[in-house]
Amino acid sequence: MTQLAAHPAYDRRDVERVVRDVLVRHFASAGSLRLKPNPLVVNISARHVHLSPEHLETLFGKGSQLEVQKDLYQDGFFAAKQTVAVVGPRRKILPEVRVLGPCRGASQVELAFTDGISLGIDLPVRCSGDHHDTPGCVLVGPKGVVELTAGVIRAERHVHMGPADLEYYGVADGQRMHLRIESQGCTTIFEDLLIRAGKNIKLEVHLDTDEGNAANLERATGVELVKPEPCGCRHK
Amino acid sequence: MTQLAAHPAYDRRDVERVVRDVLVRHFASAGSLRLKPNPLVVNISARHVHLSPEHLETLFGKGSQLEVQKDLYQDGFFAAKQTVAVVGPRRKILPEVRVLGPCRGASQVELAFTDGISLGIDLPVRCSGDHHDTPGCVLVGPKGVVELTAGVIRAERHVHMGPADLEYYGVADGQRMHLRIESQGCTTIFEDLLIRAGKNIKLEVHLDTDEGNAANLERATGVELVKPEPCGCRHK
Repeated sequence: MTQLAAHPAYDRRDVERVVRDVLVRHFASAGSLRLKPNPLVVNISARHVHLSPEHLETLFGKGSQLEVQKDLYQDGFFAAKQTVAVVGPRRKILPEVRVLGPCRGASQVELAFTDGISLGIDLPVRCSGDHHDTPGCVLVGPKGVVELTAGVIRAERHVHMGPADLEYYGVADGQRMHLRIESQGCTTIFEDLLIRAGKNIKLEVHLDTDEGNAANLERATGVELVKPEPCGCRHK
Repeated sequence: MTQLAAHPAYDRRDVERVVRDVLVRHFASAGSLRLKPNPLVVNISARHVHLSPEHLETLFGKGSQLEVQKDLYQDGFFAAKQTVAVVGPRRKILPEVRVLGPCRGASQVELAFTDGISLGIDLPVRCSGDHHDTPGCVLVGPKGVVELTAGVIRAERHVHMGPADLEYYGVADGQRMHLRIESQGCTTIFEDLLIRAGKNIKLEVHLDTDEGNAANLERATGVELVKPEPCGCRHK
């Protein structure tokens, strides 16, 4: 570290880029290595709410805009300063659920099963945006109340990918991969993560808090995406 | 169903037993089939407390005995009527944590990571009874308070087995197996469940609430114990 600090022109990222470039050129010509184009990032999505512009105004007042509290890993997305209360059918309440931005066409509440149990809501597992046959809830903000008739879900496990990631793993948008998290005493394989690909999307797995805690993600010693392939063994 | 009801002498269990007996006799002579000796039961252990007799008296009064609220799956074990409050280092509290009986030599608090996060306790993963380098907490009962200096853990995933189960799966006490839970959108493999065998023990996997919720155990369509065997595939 001392040596690096004495040569500030060469920081770690510069060195890594140079090494990567050399390796890619070397092995590409030999045709024998495919370097992972992006690091695999696994993040936990804690319970959160997406709001339509109309619901934002009802809950926070006419002309309200979401304010950025913290940028998320995917460019353009953020945790907002705003929170709402989520009220379940038996008047059980989660008092401060973070709103994520930007606004969407339809409001959506994403909870873990642990949250659903505490609220008394039987959560369906759905891909984000798929609200068929989903329960609703009541959202309470400082300026108003919204009664959602649908859109309360446990988000399906998924992995965001860009074009280079699809190529590297040999998969396509809408297909599925397994994620193995290695963690002392808690190693877990989550099967069938939905691949959601887009042009300017970074490689990122989203798990919920139950999944992250089941695998002790915070202390994980390794994460790996595995393409489901019939291999004759009993690990399907 | 109507037909079964009209022949009350032959209920489902009778029929299953007869079929099993016939199959066992038939295939045992052919030497070609090993029937699973016991059904695989997977249960969630919600957060709970084990108490030493001394701590029980401190918390609930001199001469107190645990009272059975509900028998557990393993013979002789039960959820007690008694609950205690578990207080963490930042005075965060879980107000009603069930005591399991019978009493043990040393008190122990078993929590999921979700519980640990809400209490502000960094939980180590430990086999039940292993309290080396574990945090403590404060227990509050109706008649007194106990300050535990150790014994707060996330219990390591494990499977209880009897002798017939060890033989069937070809494993030994202290070894490890994987558990696959098949569940729509939530299929999960929990690796390295510790095998804890005993003479009069029923085959039973214990997961915590995070693990059960991550895999949506309540809606599971199948559970399977898999012996970890090197098979050359990437599913280690």
